[in-house]
Amino acid sequence: MPEPTLLVLDTDPSPRLGRLTGRVRIRYTDEAGLAGQLPHADALLVWDFTSDAVRAAWPGDGPRPRWVHTASAGVDRLLCPELAASDTVLTNARGVFERPIAEYVLGLVLAFAKDVPGTLQLQRQRRWRHRESQQVAGARAVVVGAGPIGREITRLLMALGVQVALVGRTARRSIHGAEDLDRLAALADWVICAAPLTERTRGMFDARFFGLMQPSARFINVGRGPMVVEDDLADALHRRWIAGAALDVFAHEPLDPGSALWDVPGLIVSPHMSGDTVGWRDRLGEQFVEMYELWAAGKPLPNVVDKRLGYVPVRDRSE
Amino acid sequence: MPEPTLLVLDTDPSPRLGRLTGRVRIRYTDEAGLAGQLPHADALLVWDFTSDAVRAAWPGDGPRPRWVHTASAGVDRLLCPELAASDTVLTNARGVFERPIAEYVLGLVLAFAKDVPGTLQLQRQRRWRHRESQQVAGARAVVVGAGPIGREITRLLMALGVQVALVGRTARRSIHGAEDLDRLAALADWVICAAPLTERTRGMFDARFFGLMQPSARFINVGRGPMVVEDDLADALHRRWIAGAALDVFAHEPLDPGSALWDVPGLIVSPHMSGDTVGWRDRLGEQFVEMYELWAAGKPLPNVVDKRLGYVPVRDRSE
Repeated sequence: MPEPTLLVLDTDPSPRLGRLTGRVRIRYTDEAGLAGQLPHADALLVWDFTSDAVRAAWPGDGPRPRWVHTASAGVDRLLCPELAASDTVLTNARGVFERPIAEYVLGLVLAFAKDVPGTLQLQRQRRWRHRESQQVAGARAVVVGAGPIGREITRLLMALGVQVALVGRTARRSIHGAEDLDRLAALADWVICAAPLTERTRGMFDARFFGLMQPSARFINVGRGPMVVEDDLADALHRRWIAGAALDVFAHEPLDPGSALWDVPGLIVSPHMSGDTVGWRDRLGEQFVEMYELWAAGKPLPNVVDKRLGYVPVRDRSE
Repeated sequence: MPEPTLLVLDTDPSPRLGRLTGRVRIRYTDEAGLAGQLPHADALLVWDFTSDAVRAAWPGDGPRPRWVHTASAGVDRLLCPELAASDTVLTNARGVFERPIAEYVLGLVLAFAKDVPGTLQLQRQRRWRHRESQQVAGARAVVVGAGPIGREITRLLMALGVQVALVGRTARRSIHGAEDLDRLAALADWVICAAPLTERTRGMFDARFFGLMQPSARFINVGRGPMVVEDDLADALHRRWIAGAALDVFAHEPLDPGSALWDVPGLIVSPHMSGDTVGWRDRLGEQFVEMYELWAAGKPLPNVVDKRLGYVPVRDRSE
């Protein structure tokens, strides 16, 4: 059997691929070269997961990789109808980002509740001003997105004594269906978005939604930017419909220096970093090598995306 | 039996005392009037717990209250040798501050680990700069102070997957004695002080101690200011002996606007607010009223301070 060809969408060598030396022909490509290389690749590693070049370059019915892996949790940037319709297997980096993102969300919740931004601002002004902070235990949160990231956020919030309602696409044991979201959001102190971007979730957090929330409540997005109508969120904060928000993801990344979002009152803007703890690239590389070994041996792959749904379905142990 | 006299050190009426109407004669006093009133009081409520007027005004061998309650966890501001030597019972507000302070510490830990200060600074500059953050799970923490506050901090950190060593005055099951502190601090990513201020703990966090810590480690004080040699901490941060620190308590409060501590690099300064979540004054008032009912009925009081140790000893269920 000839060596298979692994195409890597990234110009920098990604870590850990050295382990596959002599067993696979590795080709690196940038976005411009992708379309020309795809027909000759057996597998594609989308290492530069910020790229949406796969959409444009996917060869349709022509020769194409049998396997595409993306070093990200979300697959929205590459899942085009042609890839969805093909028999190519698509996998994601499930397992790498759950804990870091859940910790990040907890950090934002506590930063708001304990007014860390206010403390830092007063410190710069050398002002001692005692304030009452909020207790997190006993608060109510809604986590939108019942995949592994949403579940890990739920687990950590519950460990702090927060009452959490987890909302998925459809109702299952201990998970609410999307039809419950409005009712739950109206009661929540915290609404946290950790859902995949699909045609069902695009734009779902809009003026109507923020209008449902309590004036004391806060909204956090660690999913994908286009789920939030950013102008509506800015309006809701300016009008004090809600008390605060934090966005780690945006419709256009990096956020333009001229964007009005940078100085919306009560909004924390961070640069799509929630999942990226020290060593994350190494863990992504290790994960890919392990999956490559399975693929090369003809064994079933984990983390297979349901291309119709647009994410890796979580199989509940009880189902 | 005549109505007992309850003296309240505070000029503002404290909440909930209305419940004792008709059963106790309540007198309010400021610091200046304290010495004149103390001999006529049966009980003293130190509602203004920032005051150290009790030390100066305590009547020694003369007539004095049989019970002193302070609306704080620490008793360092009022526990003078004469009060310690007397048969007056001293109680504190144990039970009110544990969870808020533990949440506050968790908020500081996550703010450092996820670089919330850096995010807020970059946001003001409209700069998108992706950074790697730190995972909290798997880190090592030392919590100094094995009372209820230190235990609650330990519990919440462990819920996040932090490996915590709890250090008390003397070793007990699952608690390290003070003799282990240096060894544990040298391995820790986080050192958290939640100990009472006593003659044993005053000044214990000094240049020698910060010199033991790892350059990547951070120090948090939610106990009492005088446990930290503030100049030594500032030096340790300037010299990068440690990576960061947060002080919620200070040798002199409020911190002087001219203090050098306000702009030490890597130091978060907050105004003694860690335990004060919305409703805290009400909870303190409720707690006092409940304790007053017990006292008036001649029943044993909870939260009795061991005046020799300077804190309420925790009785382990297993001891």
